[in-house]
Amino acid sequence: MTWYIGVIGGAECTEPERELAEEVGREIARRGAILICGGRGGIMEAASRGARQAGGMVVGILPGRHRGEGNPYLTVALPTGLGDARNAIIACAADALVAIGGGYGTLSEIGLALKMNKPVIGLDTWKLERPGLSGGIRPATSAREAVELALLLIST
Amino acid sequence: MTWYIGVIGGAECTEPERELAEEVGREIARRGAILICGGRGGIMEAASRGARQAGGMVVGILPGRHRGEGNPYLTVALPTGLGDARNAIIACAADALVAIGGGYGTLSEIGLALKMNKPVIGLDTWKLERPGLSGGIRPATSAREAVELALLLIST
Amino acid sequence: MTWYIGVIGGAECTEPERELAEEVGREIARRGAILICGGRGGIMEAASRGARQAGGMVVGILPGRHRGEGNPYLTVALPTGLGDARNAIIACAADALVAIGGGYGTLSEIGLALKMNKPVIGLDTWKLERPGLSGGIRPATSAREAVELALLLIST
Amino acid sequence: MTWYIGVIGGAECTEPERELAEEVGREIARRGAILICGGRGGIMEAASRGARQAGGMVVGILPGRHRGEGNPYLTVALPTGLGDARNAIIACAADALVAIGGGYGTLSEIGLALKMNKPVIGLDTWKLERPGLSGGIRPATSAREAVELALLLIST
Repeated sequence: MTWYIGVIGGAECTEPERELAEEVGREIARRGAILICGGRGGIMEAASRGARQAGGMVVGILPGRHRGEGNPYLTVALPTGLGDARNAIIACAADALVAIGGGYGTLSEIGLALKMNKPVIGLDTWKLERPGLSGGIRPATSAREAVELALLLIST
Repeated sequence: MTWYIGVIGGAECTEPERELAEEVGREIARRGAILICGGRGGIMEAASRGARQAGGMVVGILPGRHRGEGNPYLTVALPTGLGDARNAIIACAADALVAIGGGYGTLSEIGLALKMNKPVIGLDTWKLERPGLSGGIRPATSAREAVELALLLIST
Repeated sequence: MTWYIGVIGGAECTEPERELAEEVGREIARRGAILICGGRGGIMEAASRGARQAGGMVVGILPGRHRGEGNPYLTVALPTGLGDARNAIIACAADALVAIGGGYGTLSEIGLALKMNKPVIGLDTWKLERPGLSGGIRPATSAREAVELALLLIST
Repeated sequence: MTWYIGVIGGAECTEPERELAEEVGREIARRGAILICGGRGGIMEAASRGARQAGGMVVGILPGRHRGEGNPYLTVALPTGLGDARNAIIACAADALVAIGGGYGTLSEIGLALKMNKPVIGLDTWKLERPGLSGGIRPATSAREAVELALLLIST
């Protein structure tokens, strides 16, 4: 069985976030999972690069209509023309997601994934608080821990 | 100019949340705005009922394929067949949104709306924290304040 | 029970098509049905104008992100940001559709509607041929006949 | 540059159509293109099988929410949860499409692809007639001719 791990985060990010995302990408590829992301720059590009470096496969679900908006590390680049609604496809197509940093787009992907009962692992990302709701983002402190936790939660 | 105010919140809710949503619906209708929502039960139904009581128009953007899943207070009920991706349409079609309570679906709508630069007013809803991001949910303490703030932020 | 009749056709059209679309809009409104369309110019605008002249309600499902791209006769204008994928919403939200003239976008709406088992009435539109498939576009020769046939097929 | 060729056709098909689809899949893979399809049975499964036999890569854009609805020959299986609206993604993500047989879903994909100015090659599929419209489906008489024509039209 091949698992699909989503990596979500901003199109703009800091250098430490970039390194973390690259390491997350490598860890995903090393475990034989497919990396799925929004296909653009920042966190998405760094994770894609890491996964390709480790011989993995990367699928980019693009918001626009042109393949050229994808980053250069995608194995499969899919323009959807759906705009921000493509975030729902990333959440739907991933078995679990790792959120790194991120802005409002990432927040929407976290919400969509949790709505669909997909595990979401957080690395220095949104803090959410809403009394009475169980579950939510599971924090991790390293790329390796995040990916291991994602795979553990998928298979249980 | 007619404004469209989105009301987002859970399909299940508490009795105080229901009363608040109904009042929000009434306030929207009294100001001549169109209420747009996910069209189902809970917060969505209460807000729809309030708006209709005050003579307003209510548009429900439904996730499924059948009009019958809509609540009985919709002026226009639109089955989309898109599942949770319909949340992006609610965010896109509203000029501003009022979030009341809510779970992960509501969280995704908040994220999508903020990503699209739409004002989001919160009534006892998610607390979000992410260093370095400006904007976010604007808190209000009553239905009237929420709707007035929404209309104020649209027109400025 | 309120029915929703879709009117589909090109954003550019001939003058006779425009008059036909306007008359279709009037017929829909006279029968108390809601007109749903893509919200833009050409056939969509003419049908919208006709429906409003007869006191009807018109819902426009727009492909872009801005309400301003809608024609001036929409009662409810909904920007979706989905591009051409919004055609699937028009097919899903209508109980039956009337196709007038039209290009490839209209063709896609015809296909989507027939896939969803919605009746499609044609006024001088695509001729389709595919051996072994039953159903398909039902031809009509006037606006009145088209709308009456649409309502008849919905309720049977 | 890697090209993406869409293969569209019914989830149910005849045995000769199945053989043709399998051969189309093989031809796509032999030329180093990625095959993109709706991911299900019939024509989609046959084309996927052919492409995998020839060592190619196959992407399935699924309508539902579960990866398990995909056929067993997909390299990448993407549940979207969008229902028939996923047809717009297939059209958007392909550089050219080959239509084999097919029903109303295929018709909608043909319309969407032509709307987006993508070349569509037909193998024993819909006959369309609409005066004054240029372009449309380009007929081919063999799998090899269809794929060669698709690649020729992309690059010109």
